[in-house]
Formats: sequence, C-alpha cells, structure tokens
Amino acid sequence: MDLIKEGDDVLLYLDDRKTFLIRVEEGRQLHTHKGYLQLGELIGKPFGSAVKSSLGVTFYALKPLIRDRLAKTVRRTQVMYPKDIGYLLIRTGIGPGKRVIEAGTGSGALTMALAEQVRPDGRVYSFDVNSEFQSIAAANIDRAGLSPYVELVSKDAAEGFDVQGVDAVILDMATPWVIVSNAYDALIGSGVFASFSPTIEQVMKTVSALKTHRFVEIETIELILRKIIVEPNRTRPETLMIGHSGYLTTARKVS
Amino acid sequence: MDLIKEGDDVLLYLDDRKTFLIRVEEGRQLHTHKGYLQLGELIGKPFGSAVKSSLGVTFYALKPLIRDRLAKTVRRTQVMYPKDIGYLLIRTGIGPGKRVIEAGTGSGALTMALAEQVRPDGRVYSFDVNSEFQSIAAANIDRAGLSPYVELVSKDAAEGFDVQGVDAVILDMATPWVIVSNAYDALIGSGVFASFSPTIEQVMKTVSALKTHRFVEIETIELILRKIIVEPNRTRPETLMIGHSGYLTTARKVS
Amino acid sequence: MDLIKEGDDVLLYLDDRKTFLIRVEEGRQLHTHKGYLQLGELIGKPFGSAVKSSLGVTFYALKPLIRDRLAKTVRRTQVMYPKDIGYLLIRTGIGPGKRVIEAGTGSGALTMALAEQVRPDGRVYSFDVNSEFQSIAAANIDRAGLSPYVELVSKDAAEGFDVQGVDAVILDMATPWVIVSNAYDALIGSGVFASFSPTIEQVMKTVSALKTHRFVEIETIELILRKIIVEPNRTRPETLMIGHSGYLTTARKVS
Amino acid sequence: MDLIKEGDDVLLYLDDRKTFLIRVEEGRQLHTHKGYLQLGELIGKPFGSAVKSSLGVTFYALKPLIRDRLAKTVRRTQVMYPKDIGYLLIRTGIGPGKRVIEAGTGSGALTMALAEQVRPDGRVYSFDVNSEFQSIAAANIDRAGLSPYVELVSKDAAEGFDVQGVDAVILDMATPWVIVSNAYDALIGSGVFASFSPTIEQVMKTVSALKTHRFVEIETIELILRKIIVEPNRTRPETLMIGHSGYLTTARKVS
Repeated sequence: MDLIKEGDDVLLYLDDRKTFLIRVEEGRQLHTHKGYLQLGELIGKPFGSAVKSSLGVTFYALKPLIRDRLAKTVRRTQVMYPKDIGYLLIRTGIGPGKRVIEAGTGSGALTMALAEQVRPDGRVYSFDVNSEFQSIAAANIDRAGLSPYVELVSKDAAEGFDVQGVDAVILDMATPWVIVSNAYDALIGSGVFASFSPTIEQVMKTVSALKTHRFVEIETIELILRKIIVEPNRTRPETLMIGHSGYLTTARKVS
Repeated sequence: MDLIKEGDDVLLYLDDRKTFLIRVEEGRQLHTHKGYLQLGELIGKPFGSAVKSSLGVTFYALKPLIRDRLAKTVRRTQVMYPKDIGYLLIRTGIGPGKRVIEAGTGSGALTMALAEQVRPDGRVYSFDVNSEFQSIAAANIDRAGLSPYVELVSKDAAEGFDVQGVDAVILDMATPWVIVSNAYDALIGSGVFASFSPTIEQVMKTVSALKTHRFVEIETIELILRKIIVEPNRTRPETLMIGHSGYLTTARKVS
Repeated sequence: MDLIKEGDDVLLYLDDRKTFLIRVEEGRQLHTHKGYLQLGELIGKPFGSAVKSSLGVTFYALKPLIRDRLAKTVRRTQVMYPKDIGYLLIRTGIGPGKRVIEAGTGSGALTMALAEQVRPDGRVYSFDVNSEFQSIAAANIDRAGLSPYVELVSKDAAEGFDVQGVDAVILDMATPWVIVSNAYDALIGSGVFASFSPTIEQVMKTVSALKTHRFVEIETIELILRKIIVEPNRTRPETLMIGHSGYLTTARKVS
Repeated sequence: MDLIKEGDDVLLYLDDRKTFLIRVEEGRQLHTHKGYLQLGELIGKPFGSAVKSSLGVTFYALKPLIRDRLAKTVRRTQVMYPKDIGYLLIRTGIGPGKRVIEAGTGSGALTMALAEQVRPDGRVYSFDVNSEFQSIAAANIDRAGLSPYVELVSKDAAEGFDVQGVDAVILDMATPWVIVSNAYDALIGSGVFASFSPTIEQVMKTVSALKTHRFVEIETIELILRKIIVEPNRTRPETLMIGHSGYLTTARKVS
C-alpha cells in the first residue's frame, strides 16, 4: 500500500475545476475558499483518501501524475498539451533507457514528461540559452523527483549539442529549422527527430530543412482534442474548446 | 553504436507507404516488388543504414519502434491508434515501474505499448477470455522482447481480476461498463481507470457506472489527428482522413 | 449606386471586434468609446463610406447582411451559427419561391435567414408556443424588412401545422422527435425535413422517429468551423474556438 | 401538388449510396443493376412517389435539389463541397436579386448554386478563360433551368471584369491573389469578396493582396464536416471522412 509521507507532494482535489498541488508537511496548512486543511493529517494515510476542511468540505489526496505537474507548471510562449506530449512519446518511441535531447528547456514541463519515461537508465539532455528559465525548470524537475534523469545545459542549441548518439531530439523552440543539422549529427542511426511549432511557417521551414538531410518518414500532424460532456440527455461535445496548440513534425535519420 | 545482430527485427523502409518488419537471419532473403534483399548483409551495420536490393533500389534498415509494431499488428474489431495510445499513456501516468491491468488482450498491440513503458520493474496483467487471441498476442509480445513484463491471463474480466493494487486499469473491450466494479477493486487508491470505446452508447453506460463508484475526474475525450501535407505551394491538410477511432474515458479512484 | 437613406439600417464598423447595427436618422447620434457619430451625415453617401467620429476615428458604414443581423440578435437557449444555417440552406434546397415551416420561432434569427432566401414569392411559416418570443421575433423580422415573407403562428407545433404542401420543415426546438409525424404530413412529396439539436440524445430520438415514417436519405452531420489567423510568420488556426453548436439531421419524404 | 411532367429531371433514389439523375421522357428506360424502369410511368405522379423496377425493386422519384446537381457534376481540380457553398452563401449574403461575379466557371457547379439563390431578379456573371469548360457548364446550367440568371463570359479574370457594382465577387481559381484588384473595382461599396483555395500558400497570398486594398473584416476559415452514424448502440462519427476541401477567405470593400 502506498502511504502518504512527510515531504510527499499531493494533489488535493476539490472538484473537476479546482485542485491544489502541495507538499505535505507536519504543521502546514492549506487555506482555500472552502476552509483550511491540516496537511499533517494526511501523513500515513493511503493516496486517494478523503480529508475534510475546517468547513467540513471533502478534498481527496491524489498522488500527482506527470500530467498534474504539467497542468500546474507556468508555461512560456508555446504550449505543448498532454495530447501533444502523448503523441510525441509514442511517435519518437521514448521509453525506459532512451537518451533524449530536448531544446529548449523552458519551464521544464516537457522535460519532466520525458524524464519520467526514460527512467531509470535513460537520460534527458535539455538545452536552453536562457539560464533563468533553466533555474525555474530545475526547481520543477527536482520537486518531481526527476533530477537524476535530467542534465540541464545552458547553451544555445544552434551552437551544437555536445551529446552524441541520442535516440531522439525534440525541438520545442521558435526556430527549429536552424537546429536540424545539429539534430541530425546528434542522433543515432534510425533515431527520431521531433519538432513542435504553433505556426505553419515554422513547419514549412523545418520540413524544408529536413529534406536537405538524410531523414525519412517526414510527417507533420496536428491533434484536435474534444472533451465530451456525458450526462443523461445532455451528451455533447463541449461548446468551447482549444482549437489549436501546434503542429508536430517527426522524421527518422538514415545514413 | 547500435549494430544490427543476427536475430534482430528491422523495419526495412522503401518509402512512406511501404515498409517491412522482418527478422535478420544469415542466408534469409526478403523478396519485394523492387527486388530481393540479402538480410544477412545487414549484420554488423548500424541501424539506419542503406541497403540495395537486387534491382539496385535503396532500402533503409530502421530499428523498430513500438509504433512500427502496432502498425504491423493485425487488429481485432476496435482499434486504438497511436494518437489514442499516446494520450492514454500520459493520462493514466503509465511509466517505468507501474503495474497495469489490461482487458482485453486482443492481438496484443496495446499490451506491447504498455509493456514497453513499464519496463523494467513494472508489469502488465492482460486479461482475455479468448485464449486464441492470447496465443497470437503472446507471439507478438515475445517477438518485441517484452514477454518479461507481461502476464497473460485467460479469464473473463467480468469474473474479477486476481491482481490487486494496480496503478491503472485499461479497458479496450465491448462492454467496459460491466467491469467498472472489478476495476475499482483492483486499483490502488488514486489509481487511474481508462476505457476506450468506439460508440457513444458504450461511453454513456461506462460513465454512468463510474458515477456509482467513488471515482473523480471522470473525463471523456476524443482525439482527431490531421496529417498535413507540407510541400512548397501545396501545403494543406490531407483530403481523406480517419475521422473517428473511439472515445477515451478516464477517472481516478478515491476512497 | 446604392446610397444610404433616412431610415436605413447600417452596420458601423470600427474594427473586427466592434460593430454597431443602427438605424440612420437625421439628428441622431451614436455614442461610442471612440467618440460620437452624427448619423445624419451618412444620408446620401454610398454604403461602404468612411465616417469620422468626434474624436477623429474612422468608422465604415456597411450595408447589413443577414449574417450581421444574426450576430446582433439575442439568442435563446440553442444556437445555430451561420455555418449551420448555410449548410441547412443548401441541404434543404431553400431558395426563392420555396414555402417553409419553421418551429420554433425563438428570437427570429433563423426566420430572417430563411425569409431572406425565399423572397419574393416564397413564404416562411414560423410556429412558436411562446407568444412573447414571437413579438421579439416580429420586431427583428420587421426591422430587416422581411415581414412580407413571414407568417408567425402562435401555436405548439405538437398540435399540428395548419399549413400543407411545404417544401421544407425545419425544427430548431428541444423535442423535435415529437414533431416528426406532423412534419411528414405538412411536407410535399420529396420535401425535406431538417432538425438542429445540440445533444446526441435528441438526435437519437429524432432519427428513430424518422425511421418509423417514410423518409429516405436520413443524414446527421456536425460542422466544425476553424478560423485561421493569416499573418506573415504567424499563420495558424485560432487557439480558442467554438467546438460544438449542434447536430443537423435531414431527411426526404417519400410516399 | 407538384406532379412530374415530360421533360422534368428526377432523382431516382435506390438507397443512400445509389441515385440516378435523369430526364423523364415517355418511352425512355433507365437500366440499373436492380432491373430497368419505364420512366414514362412517372409522368403525372407526384414527386416522392415510389416506382418499381422490372425486378420489383422500389425506387423513389425525388425532385432534384441543387445539391443533387452538385453531386452529379463532374468537378475540375478544386472542389467546393455543399458545406463550403452553404457557408459562402450566408457569408456573402447572396440571395434573391443579388448580382454576383464568379471566376472561374469550371463545370458550373458553384454557378448553379449561386444562380438558384439570386433568382428571379439577380444575375451571376461567370468568367472562365477556358471556353471548353464553359460549354460543359452551359449544358449543366441549362439542364437545371438556370440559364436565364447566368451570363457566361469567356475571358481571363486577370484582364478585368466588364461588370460593375456587383454585390459579391467569388473566386474559385488557382491564383485568386492576382484578381483582388479587379474584384475590388467591380464590387459595390460594402460588397463582399470571397475566395476558396485548397492550400495555405494561396490563402497567404490572397490575404496579403486584400490588405493592400481597402477591405475590412478579412476572415479565413475552414469547415470540417463529420457524418454521424446514428443507430441504436452503434452511434458514432464515421470512420473515414473528408478531412479538408479548402479554405474560404472573405472580406468587405470599403472606400
């Protein structure tokens, strides 16, 4: 049985719109508009347990998944949603033991998702020219317990990666096309290139760059996610939805 | 460097429409409409290498990813596409070390994708009442080298899972709603339920069953994937596309 | 040349987010956050002309289209968007001279769109049990100059239409399935039934009712509209979009 | 009552996949894989009537709508679907009495849809440099009884329209951006420009050209149509769908 310990993060669930990601510490309180909770009371209870606030409102202490951490991470300009990250994982074949380059690090949201999957023997090399971003990312990654699997590199990806023979290179940056050559060099034979871009002009330039190198299976897709309201006599897709996050381009290196 | 060995599977890539998943053996030939290849010639070469057929046509020897194995697996009635599996992985938090129940096994396509991610310490318990399916699945899983992480159980999921405390239960079957109670019992606190169904009636019944148990964050979504043709002055989404595979319903157990 | 006259409606365009639908009268002012306009100044000018506000900001006096009136009409519960109305028109074959039944009238938004198309010899018979709605609708229809083509009937459509031999019956109401029989009776042979419903349960019941009558070509569709931002190096679909308005079911009467 | 006459077109409906658009003539037969029909038997019967083939199979004689004629028209390269035409009609405000320029004519499919709506006092001026297309189009338009409302002009639209003060200009051609200036000149103040293009590069160039003229409300959209299978316990969107036909760009002229 998985019991909550001092120092664990929990996701306190009030309802589908309101959750809190917080570290459990003896004596610490969480104040909400539905009353406050004594976090120490959670210690020793199983994840999934109910706790009552001072106003008698029930919260549930969920074990945070990576997707919860993604949802709580403040994003930079361009945003990969879980739908995009999920497809990226399956498309690039990132799994336990894989070595992956990421550029840029940003807030570390994608870095965490990658690190979670390459455990325990793989490694994520995450490049960003902005060292301020990387210190925020480092804190997020550390809190998620994923630091052992990540190496943050404060360097412009355009200047080259100092890592060789990686299984995948993932670009989540404004100008991926200038990195294609460096990505090719860093990849192992048969390794997978991936790039996420919000605009079609970025995609055009990236695909054009890919075609000047020995890549096969060049593919660009976008994913549209619809939430469905499922209630008796009210079943229908949600009225308002995210219509676009970005395009995902992938390719495989050959020699 | 990752070199091709006797007994390795390779994905021989001719073009974006034609690939071959085949085991490399000394003396074995692959016959195609573009000539034949001597597979033994690949031994000792790095993945990603080019090889010529007897007619001088170039093939590339890619290292198979799980998505390649999915594409080559003959499916049963309902089909989860890589887009669905990717979202399932991120939504359920399946990663290294996780213990997962799957029902039904079918051809083992999803089983392979799950097993690949839970390595090396996790485990997939895959139930199917149809033992014939399971022997096909066993062969697929074995070929992918994933047998150590999978336990196939020939049993109707409606009769209960004999496994307790799993991190996720994933239902890919015609009547998921009758399994909700067993899924609840098998899950650890805060564990994730997931069900994939092509029709909205299946979704209605499943969500209704979930609401009679202590589940939170009940969500139903569908994913629409669009391929984009990216060529100078011809950039546009593909004309013909897969419009629907199925709905994915997820929820988290509380107590 | 089409000149603006006293009493004409104009659509004053400030920018893509802000327009005003207003009647031109000598001496009348329009007050906006960008200054006020003397509406009388527009008289005698061609539609499309620029006018300056008291603060020197340019507005354009556009000739209102039906879609502008739709956008300015306060809607009831369920909302047909221009995309839905456009498809409805082409699917039902509504055009000049056609006789059409609509239920319910609501705010008269769809009524106006139908009346505009059946001019000058056709007619729209619009039923609503709620006479309060109909007086609002009457005002909207009158202002658009479409009253000669519309007959508003304060009656519950479930009690039967007193009109026979219409080319199309269009249902935009909560319980279309109870009206299917009356719709069949009112339609001419080969006439078209259409129903717009937000939820899938409404669709299921309506299609089921259609199958108990002699209808062919029963079709249910939904339309998803994406706005594309087209700006150099920023071209992409809009981030936030309307994901769902409703389903449109159509069928043709045979005997 | 609308009775079938000698010389009328009928749409003979066998099932949702098989229909025949044919002219009724005494003594004429329609041969199908379900037997032959004596078309003369239809004369004097109401539209919507059932007729039996020589093999006893029932066909229904529907009155052709414009959408039926669209479906039976052989298309050129780029294809506007009914969804696109419906939105075009509502977006451009094309209705009875409107004067419209179209370029190019192609097979006359869109021409028919426009002519049907502008009846009886409006007019469609349809330009195409290819006179061979126009003779095919003329035959289609004539058969639909819409010739009185259409003027076919064999001329390259890039050389200018000889028509002035039209309510809308609609471009369905490979290079709409070179026609923007001529479209501006031909439009009445507040008139609507519309262009349909399959590729995003066409859209970029067209929007760029629109921005160099006095147009407001420049909008680009695409419409995605999903058919829904509605059958008890099998309700779901269709598996295979048309993912893309083209983008529709509209704008309004100001002065």
